[in-house]
Amino acid sequence: MKQVERIGVSVDKKLLSVFDKLIAKRGYQSRSEAIRDLVRQQISSERLSNPKAKAVAAVFLVYDHHLTRLTEKLIGLQHSHLLQTISSMHIHLDEHDCLEVIVLRGRVGEINKMAENIVSLKGVKLGRINLIATETC
Amino acid sequence: MKQVERIGVSVDKKLLSVFDKLIAKRGYQSRSEAIRDLVRQQISSERLSNPKAKAVAAVFLVYDHHLTRLTEKLIGLQHSHLLQTISSMHIHLDEHDCLEVIVLRGRVGEINKMAENIVSLKGVKLGRINLIATETC
Amino acid sequence: MKQVERIGVSVDKKLLSVFDKLIAKRGYQSRSEAIRDLVRQQISSERLSNPKAKAVAAVFLVYDHHLTRLTEKLIGLQHSHLLQTISSMHIHLDEHDCLEVIVLRGRVGEINKMAENIVSLKGVKLGRINLIATETC
Amino acid sequence: MKQVERIGVSVDKKLLSVFDKLIAKRGYQSRSEAIRDLVRQQISSERLSNPKAKAVAAVFLVYDHHLTRLTEKLIGLQHSHLLQTISSMHIHLDEHDCLEVIVLRGRVGEINKMAENIVSLKGVKLGRINLIATETC
Repeated sequence: MKQVERIGVSVDKKLLSVFDKLIAKRGYQSRSEAIRDLVRQQISSERLSNPKAKAVAAVFLVYDHHLTRLTEKLIGLQHSHLLQTISSMHIHLDEHDCLEVIVLRGRVGEINKMAENIVSLKGVKLGRINLIATETC
Repeated sequence: MKQVERIGVSVDKKLLSVFDKLIAKRGYQSRSEAIRDLVRQQISSERLSNPKAKAVAAVFLVYDHHLTRLTEKLIGLQHSHLLQTISSMHIHLDEHDCLEVIVLRGRVGEINKMAENIVSLKGVKLGRINLIATETC
Repeated sequence: MKQVERIGVSVDKKLLSVFDKLIAKRGYQSRSEAIRDLVRQQISSERLSNPKAKAVAAVFLVYDHHLTRLTEKLIGLQHSHLLQTISSMHIHLDEHDCLEVIVLRGRVGEINKMAENIVSLKGVKLGRINLIATETC
Repeated sequence: MKQVERIGVSVDKKLLSVFDKLIAKRGYQSRSEAIRDLVRQQISSERLSNPKAKAVAAVFLVYDHHLTRLTEKLIGLQHSHLLQTISSMHIHLDEHDCLEVIVLRGRVGEINKMAENIVSLKGVKLGRINLIATETC
């Protein structure tokens, strides 16, 4: 069972009214929920600045599947011993292009290094990486 | 068959030498490949500034699976008529937390709106969204 | 005189303890102060997604001052009627390079358009733009 | 005198035509210029991931000038021995708020640490920091 504490925050009325409108538009049901999310995001992005922090990453790539050697190289990289590939998802975009989402667990620094290597493979047209610090509370 | 054109670019020698080191470190096998990637990234990020542009998105969330209504709400949102959910992937992180990666196709503006709604659901602890413009050339 | 409201927020104890350490490290003297800053940042970044929102921008450029026509072109752009240049600051970095910080007021869309034009001028080596929504509460 | 090398880059014709439209819209007069800018941006952002890299930063803050102790604290921080404040610019936004742009030289890690301290000062409503690696070629 999680222990919850109730804290008090003083906020300027005008600021609060603008914030209330923003979070209603986003679909939040309470201010507490919206503020907890801001707090968690702040903590998560702070953690990601540490190359040793544990993280989960979604590496998201578009590549031309006719360049068949790429698939082998991707599999090779995923078997790298530093990182644990949790899962991957392959989606056909059109006759040339595939989207691959690879979910990895590892340290921030290792994940970034591997993501750079993946994005630079011949045939990879676009790559993005999304990291989330796993000890997210 | 893709048609390729060879263009000439004048670059300061010192700049070129720094660039060559950077791309070697990243694993690129040629300057052409690295420069093409920069060009594609630029085009893709330009396109994403247009809310009407077609895109694929990976929405990446960490949530507490004990809050079971969340799963239903997520499925409800994915059935929204504006967006086409391509695929989703569910990963157990620990006894409380799950990671879900939802791949969507749609217009940039619609995807961002939906992502905001997902991230604000009660029980979602962290959310990130990665967009790639699909007409990536 | 600003009117202040006191709100209550329920936060998990573990999350709160991590947050308290983070904000102490950053130099905050109270949680209220840190949470207000998160709220203001959220509102400001939301506003910046609207091209019509009023903003102040700092355009930050490195350029080679030997390319003297650049200075004239920059001045020309600053006299554009859509934007109000508030101030600019010129700093000598080394024998070739200058840093120029130009502060502008205008609408988000116009400022971004101008910033793109500035960064693309011949002789400008690097450019960055920082926007802050002015109605910041 | 800078030495320039001419390199050849193979690019898909369709990609090139999209790129040409994009750079024309941004005001570039040549592809070489646009590609050099991409190369410099890449190098600069790579350098900024190293906390020891030399950089120039523009710290951009909005604060309430009625909180007069803030000005003193800002001056105190600027006299920190690790960083060299090059210049600062103070702009009146409205009856309450001021914009201050502080240009600093230092190492990436030190600048980020100081920026965090500034942004957390009581009375600072919003802060942004823009870094440019100085050895920009």
